[in-house]
Amino acid sequence: MNNTTSNTITEYSIIKNLVRDFKLDKVLESNPQTKTVSLLGKIKNEQAIIILEKLHFDENDYKHLTDLQLVKDIACNDIYHWGLIRFEEYGAVDEESRLNVKLNLIWPATEVHIKKYIEQKFHIIRETPEMYVTIVLPYIEEMHNNGRLNWVYNILYKDAELDRIIYKDPKEFVLLPDMKWSGEPEEIDALYLVAIVYRDDIRSIRDLRYKDRDWLIEIQDKIKQIVTCAYKIESDVLRIFVHYQPSYYHFHIHVVNVKQFGLKDGISVGKAILLDDIIENLKYMGEDGYKNRVITYIIGESHGLWERGLKDYRESKQNCSNDDIKEAKEEQIIIK
Amino acid sequence: MNNTTSNTITEYSIIKNLVRDFKLDKVLESNPQTKTVSLLGKIKNEQAIIILEKLHFDENDYKHLTDLQLVKDIACNDIYHWGLIRFEEYGAVDEESRLNVKLNLIWPATEVHIKKYIEQKFHIIRETPEMYVTIVLPYIEEMHNNGRLNWVYNILYKDAELDRIIYKDPKEFVLLPDMKWSGEPEEIDALYLVAIVYRDDIRSIRDLRYKDRDWLIEIQDKIKQIVTCAYKIESDVLRIFVHYQPSYYHFHIHVVNVKQFGLKDGISVGKAILLDDIIENLKYMGEDGYKNRVITYIIGESHGLWERGLKDYRESKQNCSNDDIKEAKEEQIIIK
Repeated sequence: MNNTTSNTITEYSIIKNLVRDFKLDKVLESNPQTKTVSLLGKIKNEQAIIILEKLHFDENDYKHLTDLQLVKDIACNDIYHWGLIRFEEYGAVDEESRLNVKLNLIWPATEVHIKKYIEQKFHIIRETPEMYVTIVLPYIEEMHNNGRLNWVYNILYKDAELDRIIYKDPKEFVLLPDMKWSGEPEEIDALYLVAIVYRDDIRSIRDLRYKDRDWLIEIQDKIKQIVTCAYKIESDVLRIFVHYQPSYYHFHIHVVNVKQFGLKDGISVGKAILLDDIIENLKYMGEDGYKNRVITYIIGESHGLWERGLKDYRESKQNCSNDDIKEAKEEQIIIK
Repeated sequence: MNNTTSNTITEYSIIKNLVRDFKLDKVLESNPQTKTVSLLGKIKNEQAIIILEKLHFDENDYKHLTDLQLVKDIACNDIYHWGLIRFEEYGAVDEESRLNVKLNLIWPATEVHIKKYIEQKFHIIRETPEMYVTIVLPYIEEMHNNGRLNWVYNILYKDAELDRIIYKDPKEFVLLPDMKWSGEPEEIDALYLVAIVYRDDIRSIRDLRYKDRDWLIEIQDKIKQIVTCAYKIESDVLRIFVHYQPSYYHFHIHVVNVKQFGLKDGISVGKAILLDDIIENLKYMGEDGYKNRVITYIIGESHGLWERGLKDYRESKQNCSNDDIKEAKEEQIIIK
């Protein structure tokens, strides 16, 4: 024992005594995204679950940045550097084993980098067909004309990234690992693929019509066939979806393992739409498909479309005045 | 300097020297869910971004559980205990400030607790109207008959949780903070409310018909009015959605701050459906609304419905045979 034994209050706390008796049986769940583990074991012959979660950084932690105890370089590529650091002040013996914080450094960083990492405000937008035509469509056309899609065309029509491509058929689509996934079959839990179609007339779901329904069904079936063959997994563990707004305006489909929850807004409602739901919706919306639909999504203030006009359509800031609150209080029960 | 100075290789690493010069300007983003912070600063007069991320637990960490250095009790309620621990082996001076792991203990734990924390397999299910009638509906009726909804009725028709309720009108709905949220106005970023409606005929979206459309629009408008008034936030930062399958079969609506990404499958496509999309879908599906729709969702193997029959409808395990792969290889380009 060390000097904590002098602290009798915490020393004899209930939780401490219980945890001291804990005999680990197995790990129930281990989540690297949230830094949480759930352990099953026994205390005094009864089953016990312990959930451990790393605490978030304290503002005081940043102070220690400049006198780091130990840094282990992982890699360095141009302006990007990765390393491991120890985020404790102790001068301890076995230091390498105590590296507990990953550090990424971007230097020199441009405004684009800063924009990517800055905390932005998000808003719900209900995009009507009129808003699409007046705000979104001109934006899409600008993106097309300024070469922002060259990397897509390089994959589709030239031989870019050939060594990463899983499937390529100019009558159908190209399938390859997304940048967010290593592509290693052993990391199958994190599977993340993208299928880019050989059609230039569909920039986003907005362009989907009833006549495209069978084509979408065929593509989805084909994706499942290829992925299950290539990675030896079952097709019912694949979450297949598209984004609206997408990050680039050439129709593409995301394929991830359903086990993967750590994708921030990537799989959230208000950004992701299941391909199955699109196929189902097309059954009901008539020939014009998504053309006339109101599409609701979340957009960040740093998205190009926000400044270009979507912000003018945001809902009135607050739907209440003091009079409203009073009135509501009299009519109904509002406790808080 | 301490004894790490002897390690000249890491001491003079590129990243260490760069980080040593880092002058912090501001925090770009701080994410308690993923334990990540992004810092903006300068190195040699050029902008630099440093992203810090806590490392996940190492399997060796669990060994130290029984000889904890320090435990600080937070709370204890029946079989639930919370505390903070220090997850380092050093005997240090300022120990309280180094509590770096949150510990939850459930003891004695039942099989239900274990089921909740165990890692389960998830599957995509396409629920047809027939599957609903034969598998889901009997399950819902059983849930109704065995008193599993008593806590909901206590909130609706008795005075349960009155001190937490924000709004209650027996002609409309009850609005109150979800268990996942503290309900404290200062924690507005984590806002999570639930609206439970005063209608017993809607167990889930499956029961929604065209005639309910106006009612849903009214409810959504009312929710926005109340939440914006009560919490002084703008209505376009509210993500309003329902779950299918829901965790209880009495129609209820989730309301969260769009800033909140850390809700695992709670806001993921395949589980969450925007109320706006439901309202839009009802415009197209005819009088019978969701009755005849194919609804696609993700379900875990520990969900009651899986064993009761959904598993019999899962897609064939793998869509390929060796012949298929060969054939595909001949026809198209399959590189991997």
